[in-house]
Amino acid sequence: MRTELSTLGEFGLIDRIKLQQAEKQQKSTLKGIGDDCAVIEKSKTEVTLISTDILLEGIHFDLTYTPLLHLGYKAVAVNVSDVAAMNGIPQQITVSIAISNRFSVEAIDELYKGIRLACENYKVDLVGGDTTSSQRGLMISVTVIGTAKKSEVAYRSGAKVNDVICVSGDLGAAYAGLQILEREKEVYSANPEMQPELEGKDYVIKRLLKPEGRTDIVHELKDLGIVPTSMIDISDGLASEILHICNASGVGAYVYEDKLPITHDTEQTLFDFKLDPTTAAMNGGEDYELLFTVSMKDFEKLKNHEDITTIGYITEKAKGVIMISKKGNQYPIKAQGWDHLV
Amino acid sequence: MRTELSTLGEFGLIDRIKLQQAEKQQKSTLKGIGDDCAVIEKSKTEVTLISTDILLEGIHFDLTYTPLLHLGYKAVAVNVSDVAAMNGIPQQITVSIAISNRFSVEAIDELYKGIRLACENYKVDLVGGDTTSSQRGLMISVTVIGTAKKSEVAYRSGAKVNDVICVSGDLGAAYAGLQILEREKEVYSANPEMQPELEGKDYVIKRLLKPEGRTDIVHELKDLGIVPTSMIDISDGLASEILHICNASGVGAYVYEDKLPITHDTEQTLFDFKLDPTTAAMNGGEDYELLFTVSMKDFEKLKNHEDITTIGYITEKAKGVIMISKKGNQYPIKAQGWDHLV
Repeated sequence: MRTELSTLGEFGLIDRIKLQQAEKQQKSTLKGIGDDCAVIEKSKTEVTLISTDILLEGIHFDLTYTPLLHLGYKAVAVNVSDVAAMNGIPQQITVSIAISNRFSVEAIDELYKGIRLACENYKVDLVGGDTTSSQRGLMISVTVIGTAKKSEVAYRSGAKVNDVICVSGDLGAAYAGLQILEREKEVYSANPEMQPELEGKDYVIKRLLKPEGRTDIVHELKDLGIVPTSMIDISDGLASEILHICNASGVGAYVYEDKLPITHDTEQTLFDFKLDPTTAAMNGGEDYELLFTVSMKDFEKLKNHEDITTIGYITEKAKGVIMISKKGNQYPIKAQGWDHLV
Repeated sequence: MRTELSTLGEFGLIDRIKLQQAEKQQKSTLKGIGDDCAVIEKSKTEVTLISTDILLEGIHFDLTYTPLLHLGYKAVAVNVSDVAAMNGIPQQITVSIAISNRFSVEAIDELYKGIRLACENYKVDLVGGDTTSSQRGLMISVTVIGTAKKSEVAYRSGAKVNDVICVSGDLGAAYAGLQILEREKEVYSANPEMQPELEGKDYVIKRLLKPEGRTDIVHELKDLGIVPTSMIDISDGLASEILHICNASGVGAYVYEDKLPITHDTEQTLFDFKLDPTTAAMNGGEDYELLFTVSMKDFEKLKNHEDITTIGYITEKAKGVIMISKKGNQYPIKAQGWDHLV
């Protein structure tokens, strides 16, 4: 008997793995599979946060247009983002790489230069890893270790009815950047003499190639004395992430299309490709912004924050997870996101 | 300018990565790259241990003769072994996999069944990971999180002159098992009708396919009140590991060939292949036993332990790292081990 992986999809596979798990055996395990990080008890008041991500050539990145320096930076940033999504502070990372002999020592130096830049920027120490050869291509596996006060950990499951839904930064830009780089790759493969047309596209390209984990938001929330009731990072698109929060919290949500933070640059680029900015924000992915909910009381402290946008509020579960369109129509939000397994 | 990776080798690449690292930024980082685990401060008296390993199809395992159940078990065991090598107790693991559509849901179930068995055996919780598709083959990346008292962590760097060198279990068996499975693979590819000749080879094959991390030895040492002065797990062969300890500790060593723990089964199998048991023990790899040093005082408590063998003692650095052959000749020990990068 053979069941194809494509019948499960990524989230289906994760659910299947969860079901097969052994009973919990360590009382220090506070939260296992199912959030941005695992949460392990460190002391009565503190926890250790752990998250891990794989980046595979040909699946997660294309070296035709991804400089190794940026790839190294991004590999760290996307893991740091998972710790930020728990309202924690990253402290250490391990980086494992598998490389084929296509790569030179100088290429690996570039990759680790990017890793080093990210380590300096996020104040994390590179403490270990594994190096091996691969038969083909480059694979990077990063694990991040972070810390948080036990009382300040923001799980996906804590959103409450009437909480305000907030997003940091802006959405859809990485997806817009991807369109440009994919187009230039095609142009280049048809005619290597062509110069790339990237003028004025710096922002959206940077958002794809060099995303940031929003630890700055975590520090700001701390300074304001705010603990989000729930939080997640936006790696697969807003639609997928709001559904994760609503499912884990047992609530519904209203999200207003006209509130989605989308920059002019992003909109302009998507317009050139005849793509819808809302779709890019909802399903584009790779933004690595934070999606979080706060109580009405805390919202007062945030409402004038220039890098945080309120996009809606939490409702009772029965109301569903709904997008209110610019015309005032209601649409159920469905996850599309990246599903490499299909 | 292009320098080939093969000019560095694996250890050369690790050294280069270490040199490129940023300055340490977190005071909680007690030990970074360069031991079996990274060591992170947990409290005044306790530390968190972290290690990570990649297993790649075609490099680290051959699915022609490796059942996925065993592969899952082994992926956990070899990481657990790294925590044991620090004199620590493993508590959690994360498992990331990249899989091509060649694998069915049932195949992944088998892999996770093996992971589950190992989790139950070693009392560790599976707390996270990443799942993604690959263009080709199976890749497994495991990170283990363990704990130890700060005063009981055994680094590679603590061996002192006159310390006794000990090895748990026996050596060279996994290498013997590999010879058999590689032979049977060739026989099978020449004639698929042939039945495999595995009779009486259970032990050496099991040692290759289902190694164990020696957490039992860690518990026994604790019960005896012994903290090894240095420790490492034998993944690349005794030669490579004793050199790691001697280099890190700034000492030399005498190792006696006639003391190497090699079972009759291993010897017999290697004899059939006209291979030297000492070479298998020194350079075969994949034994996952513990190599450690203890003070003369502690050695008294260990000398009758039936699963621990004394193979030599630590000397001054100037004396070199030496094997005393059965005939009484001295040979400098050189690392050969696995070097996938060459």
